Amino acid sequence: MYKLIQKDSSAKSGELKTVHGTIQTPVFMNVGTAAAIKGAVSTVDLKNIGTQVQLSNTYHLHVRTGDEVIKKMGGLHRFMVWDSPILTDSGGFQVFSLAKLRKIKEEGVYFNSHIDGRKIFMGPEESMKIQSNLASTIAMAFDECPPYPAQRSYIQESVNRTTRWLIRCKKELDRLNTLEDTINKHQMLFGINQGGTYKDIRIEHAKVISEMELDGYAIGGLAVGESHEDMYHIIEETVPYLPDDKPVYLMGVGTPANILEAVDRGVDFFDCVYPTRNGRHGHAYTGLGKMNLLNAKYELDDRPIEEGCMCPTCQTYSRAYIRHLLKAKEMLGMRLLVLHNLYFYNHMMEEIREAIRSNRYKQYKKQKLESLKQYDDK
Amino acid sequence: MYKLIQKDSSAKSGELKTVHGTIQTPVFMNVGTAAAIKGAVSTVDLKNIGTQVQLSNTYHLHVRTGDEVIKKMGGLHRFMVWDSPILTDSGGFQVFSLAKLRKIKEEGVYFNSHIDGRKIFMGPEESMKIQSNLASTIAMAFDECPPYPAQRSYIQESVNRTTRWLIRCKKELDRLNTLEDTINKHQMLFGINQGGTYKDIRIEHAKVISEMELDGYAIGGLAVGESHEDMYHIIEETVPYLPDDKPVYLMGVGTPANILEAVDRGVDFFDCVYPTRNGRHGHAYTGLGKMNLLNAKYELDDRPIEEGCMCPTCQTYSRAYIRHLLKAKEMLGMRLLVLHNLYFYNHMMEEIREAIRSNRYKQYKKQKLESLKQYDDK
Repeated sequence: MYKLIQKDSSAKSGELKTVHGTIQTPVFMNVGTAAAIKGAVSTVDLKNIGTQVQLSNTYHLHVRTGDEVIKKMGGLHRFMVWDSPILTDSGGFQVFSLAKLRKIKEEGVYFNSHIDGRKIFMGPEESMKIQSNLASTIAMAFDECPPYPAQRSYIQESVNRTTRWLIRCKKELDRLNTLEDTINKHQMLFGINQGGTYKDIRIEHAKVISEMELDGYAIGGLAVGESHEDMYHIIEETVPYLPDDKPVYLMGVGTPANILEAVDRGVDFFDCVYPTRNGRHGHAYTGLGKMNLLNAKYELDDRPIEEGCMCPTCQTYSRAYIRHLLKAKEMLGMRLLVLHNLYFYNHMMEEIREAIRSNRYKQYKKQKLESLKQYDDK
Repeated sequence: MYKLIQKDSSAKSGELKTVHGTIQTPVFMNVGTAAAIKGAVSTVDLKNIGTQVQLSNTYHLHVRTGDEVIKKMGGLHRFMVWDSPILTDSGGFQVFSLAKLRKIKEEGVYFNSHIDGRKIFMGPEESMKIQSNLASTIAMAFDECPPYPAQRSYIQESVNRTTRWLIRCKKELDRLNTLEDTINKHQMLFGINQGGTYKDIRIEHAKVISEMELDGYAIGGLAVGESHEDMYHIIEETVPYLPDDKPVYLMGVGTPANILEAVDRGVDFFDCVYPTRNGRHGHAYTGLGKMNLLNAKYELDDRPIEEGCMCPTCQTYSRAYIRHLLKAKEMLGMRLLVLHNLYFYNHMMEEIREAIRSNRYKQYKKQKLESLKQYDDK
């Protein structure tokens, strides 16, 4: 159950009550693809860096270890020891980006596993079944994530199919939620808006899915190659046609600046691999911009990554030590950066919530965007 | 300053007072080759798993990042944020095992870096200088670690040179400890006994170095290919010729059973990469023997690695989850196993100390060796 707490111009802050606790929004979901955050970060660590929601990938868990195993182990929460909310994606995006030799039919998608090549079929019912086995807090609808750029006719056809799939997802999840051996009988469903960069298709689709009384609405298929300006424009045009009293989730986005802009346009759920992936490559996010800890200028720098930062890394270790770890290819270097980066994202979302709830979001955004430009390490 | 607290037959338990705190022995030093424990384990973690001493490698730190950098950063303790004792090896073992195209001369060893091939010279004075820059608590003498097997004549010649190098090490470290810009002016020196599997050469060398009033004595050049029985025999024959009122350190050893046997023969310092290396390969040490967490039998096993274990891993995560992490190649799996394994080693040393100090070591050893045989996963 979502409650809108404050609107500050188009920016919104709310809370989503779930069986695994209440999520304060805007929120950044920390991506743990295979039921683990990359960079050797555990769920115990997540509690220490302000994580509200963990996101895991249906496709990855289905092909490796298997959702049936995780169901037998009591679901994802028990398996990875995390009692707060978990969102699972539908598997759709990975099927379209990772799997090989796929064939899209009305019933769903036939493809080969990227791990061992074995044939797999996934349609709306299969995706719901897997997510029900995983017993996440929030399941995502199974959609097609079309390539960019794509012709208008293809996008229209794809969006229509995504709508038909969404209807099947809802029906199937409603059914699964009533079964006796379902672990989480209150699993929520978020639908996904598609339409590429075609504004009118996006809007029409937003109107259609808004009628469906879902628990939340996502905007998918962005940040796939279009410019930031195009992305912001699509968000701005689409969000007004999604219900105000439901969460709005922008999938797979993005940089701190992307998030600040999207919040300003009414988005309140985010996820992105940047803080983990860039951390593993030696980059740190800070309030003054992005740092590359591999740079020679940090060799003798005994300051923390970010002065005043309360993350476990900055509380103890220096830039010079982290640079050494990265050069020596010590896993600890990646771990320390990932911990810092996730803390940075989680902490920025906290600032964002405070700014919206005290009606000063525009001012906060302006200052933050300015500040974020100071560093830009290559 | 070493104080012998208890002898129980040949087993001994003591304490070594250092400028970085007192070490209770027998002790297992946790290996952090490049100023970091492999498996993304930080010095904060080490405090939580009962680590007394951290060991870093002179050769690795010299060729990557460099001891001059670490000196500028205030020494290893400040660099890696660890206020307890650190032992650094001499670099000798790595020069002989890792470096390429080496040439041994009376003055020292000429070799090429295994990282970038650049020419490096290291002799006793260079090793002491590097270790003084690192400012470890205990420096190891620069020795030759001869190959196994090796002819008697070669070993004799090598041991004689190692003795001459030891004299130079002591002289140089004494000098360095008086220099104004030396970070740790109380750096201790341990000498290293060599002699391959030639008992009489070992004993003669032990007698010679025992005269030199060093802070401790190591037995080097074992666990390099000889049988366990040969190793135990050499230890048994050599230890009586080393001073009882000084620490005895068996370098690079070993399995839990190796340690139990060596303690019984008077050794009280150990280091080994097994808990970290085997952890990274999916193996866990337990009181019932070694487990391979990749085994299919753990797929649905929701017990901790070791029931009753108080390590951070066993307090939270299941065998099934760790197996999944290993299969999914998630770094977190390695980290959780390394934390468990180091805790296991540190905790076993605690049991060993208690057993010696209450004069029941033989009985403890017998029971422990028996217990350790129960699992033996392939």
